[in-house]
Amino acid sequence: MLTTRLDLDRIRVARRAIDPIFLDTPLYECDALGRQLGCAVSIKLETANPVRSFKARGTELVTGLLADQGRVGVVCASAGNLGQALGWSGRRRGLDVTVVASRWAPAAKLDRIRALGAELELVDGDFEAARERAAGIAQQRGVRLVEDSLDIETCEGAATIGLELADRTPSFDAVLIALGGGAMATGVGHVLKTLAPGVEVICVQPAGAPAMTRSWHQRRVVTTDSTSTIADGVAGRYPIRAVLDDLLAVADDAVLVREASIVAGMRMLLERAGLVVEPSAALGVAAILEDPDRFAGRHVVTIICGSNVDLDAYHRWVRS
Amino acid sequence: MLTTRLDLDRIRVARRAIDPIFLDTPLYECDALGRQLGCAVSIKLETANPVRSFKARGTELVTGLLADQGRVGVVCASAGNLGQALGWSGRRRGLDVTVVASRWAPAAKLDRIRALGAELELVDGDFEAARERAAGIAQQRGVRLVEDSLDIETCEGAATIGLELADRTPSFDAVLIALGGGAMATGVGHVLKTLAPGVEVICVQPAGAPAMTRSWHQRRVVTTDSTSTIADGVAGRYPIRAVLDDLLAVADDAVLVREASIVAGMRMLLERAGLVVEPSAALGVAAILEDPDRFAGRHVVTIICGSNVDLDAYHRWVRS
Repeated sequence: MLTTRLDLDRIRVARRAIDPIFLDTPLYECDALGRQLGCAVSIKLETANPVRSFKARGTELVTGLLADQGRVGVVCASAGNLGQALGWSGRRRGLDVTVVASRWAPAAKLDRIRALGAELELVDGDFEAARERAAGIAQQRGVRLVEDSLDIETCEGAATIGLELADRTPSFDAVLIALGGGAMATGVGHVLKTLAPGVEVICVQPAGAPAMTRSWHQRRVVTTDSTSTIADGVAGRYPIRAVLDDLLAVADDAVLVREASIVAGMRMLLERAGLVVEPSAALGVAAILEDPDRFAGRHVVTIICGSNVDLDAYHRWVRS
Repeated sequence: MLTTRLDLDRIRVARRAIDPIFLDTPLYECDALGRQLGCAVSIKLETANPVRSFKARGTELVTGLLADQGRVGVVCASAGNLGQALGWSGRRRGLDVTVVASRWAPAAKLDRIRALGAELELVDGDFEAARERAAGIAQQRGVRLVEDSLDIETCEGAATIGLELADRTPSFDAVLIALGGGAMATGVGHVLKTLAPGVEVICVQPAGAPAMTRSWHQRRVVTTDSTSTIADGVAGRYPIRAVLDDLLAVADDAVLVREASIVAGMRMLLERAGLVVEPSAALGVAAILEDPDRFAGRHVVTIICGSNVDLDAYHRWVRS
C-alpha cells in the first residue's frame, strides 16, 4: 500500500479545477531522438502553454482555492517558473501576486513574471534566500505563502501529468522526471505507482545541485552549502522532509548527471526534436546519455518541464 | 450557403480516423508575442507530434482508406512534410510508401522521410517536377497517388484543425493560415466559415511564391515560372482549379509577405514563444508585422504548421 501525502481521488478532483489549456499536453514518440539514444523515447511536452512550464497545473489549484476563500494576495519564492505560473493564475482570478526570486535568476524568467503583472522582489542570494524572504512577506502581510513541493496543491497539480501518462496505452517502461524540490517527482510518481506500478520512476538531478538525490539515497535530509548548475529550475539546497518521505515511497531511483550531459541533452532536443528547452527539461535525456545500457531497447518517457531560457545563454550552450 | 468540395459531417467523421496523437493540439495565447505585435496572438501548435507538421491529419485519412481497401502502395510528391506524414501513417499500416521530392528540399526533411522507411526519389527540379514524377510512378506501378490539396482527404485532415479552432470560446477575430497548395486554407476556412462565420480567414503566402494568392485575387488560375522563397513548404507554381474555387468560397483575404518578414517572424517566434519553426509556419506572424494596423487590438490565431527546418539555415536566418 502506497502511503504519501497524495491521494488519487483528490488528484482527479484537482484536475477539474485546472484551466484545460494546461492539461492533456502532447505525448508522442520522437523517432529521431530515440534512434540517437538507442531506446524508444516519448516526449511529454509541458511547454506549449502561456507560461511555458508545467507549474501552472499547481498554481491553478492554489489560486482557485484562494479565490474561493475570498483571499486577495499570495506570495511565493520562485526560481522563475513558479512565479510566472502564479502570476498567470493569480491575474486571472484578480489576486495580488508577489514573487520573490534571486537576482541571478534568468532574465527571461524575471521579465515574464513582471509582464504578468506580479510584484517581483529580488534578493541577493539563491533560491533558498528567496524562500526565506517570501516567508517573511507572507507573515508580514498576512497573505498565503505558496511553498513549492511542500504545499500539497503544487504536488497534486504536477500529479495530473501522471494521470495523463497512466492513460497511455500501451504503457512505457520508465519515466524520467527532473528533480528539484520534488513536487513533480512525487506527484507523477504517486500516480504511476498507483495506476501503472510497472513503470520505473527515475528522478534526475544535476550533480551540481544534488541535495534531494543525496537525501533519497541516504533516506534522510541532506543539505548542501551551494549549488553549481545551469539547471536553475532545480537548484535547491534544503530538501523538505515531508517531500523526501513521499519521494522515498514513489521513486525507484534518483540519479545525478553532469553539466556536459545536460548541455548535450538540450542540443539533442533541439537537433532531433526541434525543441528549445531550459536546462532542467534536458535532465531526462542527459540521464539516458550517461547510462545508455540501462535504457537500451526500452520505452522511456521524458517530461519536458519548461522552456523558459535566456536565449543568449542557450545559444552559447547548444552551439559550442 | 457555403459550397466547396468539403462537408462538415464528413470532416467530423474523418476526425475519428486520425490517430489522436495528431488531434487536439495546443491552442494558447502567447502574451509575450502579443505585446510585441500589438494584438492578442494565440498559437495553434501543429508541431508537437511525431512528424512535426499538421500533414499527418490528412495522411491518416488516406492511408486508413487504402488499408481498408487492401491496397499495398502509395506515392506522393512532397516538399518534405507530406512525405514524412505519409511515411509515418503508411508504415503504421504496412503500406509501401514512395515519396518524390526535389533534390533541393531541406536535408532535414529528406533524412526524416528515409528514416521512416519510405522510398525516397529525388528529382532535379522543384516541387512541380516532383508532382509530375509522382504521377508517373503511380501510373506505372498502379498505386494510389496522393495529391496534396487536390485529394479531398488532405483538405479534410487539415479541416480538423478548424473544428478545434471553432470549439474555442471565446472566439477570436481572425485566423492566419499559411497558403501553399491550399489544403490547410480551404479545410480550416470551410469549417470556420460554417461554424464561426465571424472569424476572418486570412491566407498568407510568400511574395516569392505568389501563384495561389494571385489566383485568388484574379479569380482564375495564375501560374508562375519560378519561386524564390525560404518557405519551401508553400512554394508551388501551379494552383489547382478545384482548390482555388474552394479558396474563393472560404477565404476573406490572401496576402503576400516579404522574405525579411518571414525571417523576422521566425526570430520572434523563437524569442517570444520559444518555438523553432520552419519558414512556412512564420507566415502568419510575418503578415501581422507587415500590417500591424489591421490587427491592432484584435485577437488573432496563427497556425504553426511545421517545424522541420535545417538547423544550420535556421541559425543563419534568426541570428543574422
